[in-house]
Amino acid sequence: MDWKAEIAEAADRIAGHVQVTPVIETRGFGLDFPLEMKLEHLQHTGSFKARGAFNTLLSCDVPPAGVVAASGGNHGAAAAYAARALGYPAKIFVPEMAGLSKIALIRGIGADLSVVPGEYANALAQAREHETATGAMQIHAYDAPATVAGQGTCFAEWEAQGLQADTVLIAVGGGGLIAGALAWLQGARKVVAVEPETSCALNAALRAGSPVDVEVSGIAANALGARRIGDICFGLSGGVESVLVPDAAIAAAQRALWQERRMLVEPAGATALAALTCGAYQPRRGERVAVLVCGGNIAPDPFAG
Amino acid sequence: MDWKAEIAEAADRIAGHVQVTPVIETRGFGLDFPLEMKLEHLQHTGSFKARGAFNTLLSCDVPPAGVVAASGGNHGAAAAYAARALGYPAKIFVPEMAGLSKIALIRGIGADLSVVPGEYANALAQAREHETATGAMQIHAYDAPATVAGQGTCFAEWEAQGLQADTVLIAVGGGGLIAGALAWLQGARKVVAVEPETSCALNAALRAGSPVDVEVSGIAANALGARRIGDICFGLSGGVESVLVPDAAIAAAQRALWQERRMLVEPAGATALAALTCGAYQPRRGERVAVLVCGGNIAPDPFAG
Repeated sequence: MDWKAEIAEAADRIAGHVQVTPVIETRGFGLDFPLEMKLEHLQHTGSFKARGAFNTLLSCDVPPAGVVAASGGNHGAAAAYAARALGYPAKIFVPEMAGLSKIALIRGIGADLSVVPGEYANALAQAREHETATGAMQIHAYDAPATVAGQGTCFAEWEAQGLQADTVLIAVGGGGLIAGALAWLQGARKVVAVEPETSCALNAALRAGSPVDVEVSGIAANALGARRIGDICFGLSGGVESVLVPDAAIAAAQRALWQERRMLVEPAGATALAALTCGAYQPRRGERVAVLVCGGNIAPDPFAG
Repeated sequence: MDWKAEIAEAADRIAGHVQVTPVIETRGFGLDFPLEMKLEHLQHTGSFKARGAFNTLLSCDVPPAGVVAASGGNHGAAAAYAARALGYPAKIFVPEMAGLSKIALIRGIGADLSVVPGEYANALAQAREHETATGAMQIHAYDAPATVAGQGTCFAEWEAQGLQADTVLIAVGGGGLIAGALAWLQGARKVVAVEPETSCALNAALRAGSPVDVEVSGIAANALGARRIGDICFGLSGGVESVLVPDAAIAAAQRALWQERRMLVEPAGATALAALTCGAYQPRRGERVAVLVCGGNIAPDPFAG
């Protein structure tokens, strides 16, 4: 697959439908080196997921039954938003662990939402049943080429905005975002995969030599808690460096992003930064590093109730 | 005064000490036209005030007694931050209405803080007594040339980042920020001054023909509640258009900034947008508009407690 061309086409396709998110160069967080950051939590529906959702819907014929998605919350919100924007019905399945904030976000967009007991894998099973029963089109959260190409536009955009970094740190759940990064960057910059110790499907797959099931839990689980890494991501992960961070480091980075830079993000959105602040990834002297801030759908929602 | 030169010098002086804040082009908020925004709430200490504070401290000899400032909260935090960064002692007076979040912010920076009963004017009176008694240098919150030149760097920076707008909407308290805008832009773009109906010192001055005292209250009062507009601002305000917005519109704009764009700001930070969303300022067809998002020190602090 010519990923560079796919991503460039995706970028043209979704232009005007997604938010060009801002970038900053900053210092702080107890680090003695500067950071570049892309504020992708300012994307429509609060995460990068809108890119893959729009690219999927704009690159195929959507059936009359509309679209269906399974999601820890962020992908479901993005699929619902893109479907509404383009005039398609949407059916979204989320696990209970999506939490009240994300469930309210999806309901607020107007999608038909089912909350499924258990974890993400359970919601995905129900979404597949719905797909079979109705003919609705599945928008996969991370393991489909159109999804990966859509997420890859984030990095094409960042480079067009002047990204300087030698190394980009990215939080990983099912691997759609980092697959997009690897597909676009193709070794031109180092990519560091950051996972919570308690939800680390990519790290487990790299150690096992192929995707394997893992247990998922912890404070970022509703965004990063995929039971198994996507095949597309695994296939692209040859040169990636994998690091793990404890939940306490994620919580500390989340707090620091608010206290030092007034960026309010969910735990997943702070996970990449946590790898630097807790020392799980230590740049060499002079190595320029960048952090993708991927999601802002915090719980509780500060305006809830 | 050659304001353009003053502001250009200020920008050189404070470079590296302040955050270059990002800009976005976006749609939403129920508006049928695009908006440019500058996210100045991501500045150090959560508001533009760091610019004026650093410019003041870097452009003069600071006495051994250090610096003193009176503030509704944001200027105090900025003065304390700049003083700490440059190694000077700082004494900050805030009125009770600064609120727990801003008081905690200033304490967290490590300044010597006094909370004064009443409103901003009472805090300013005590700061002046402290100045006289100790020889500490006063950093005025808005009505001093170095403060205005510092705030003006925000607009020099925005133009360098590609600002396209015909019209820039700016929230006004004591007038330091908008004075910086007027001093830099010098009529090249229209400037709209947005004040809460309940704290409108500039509007009252424009109607009276000179600065007059006003009563201050409402949800943005701890940032915008100056009893009298600064003389520098008033002197520059010839071409400005003044509009007022109700507190309910400010609260709705604040909520929309979070819900649609994941920007969590204080009421003052949403006040300029409120002028568009409530129709207090209605752009002509094709008029390009920009909104300065000036402050993010919301109460309660989402990580308090």
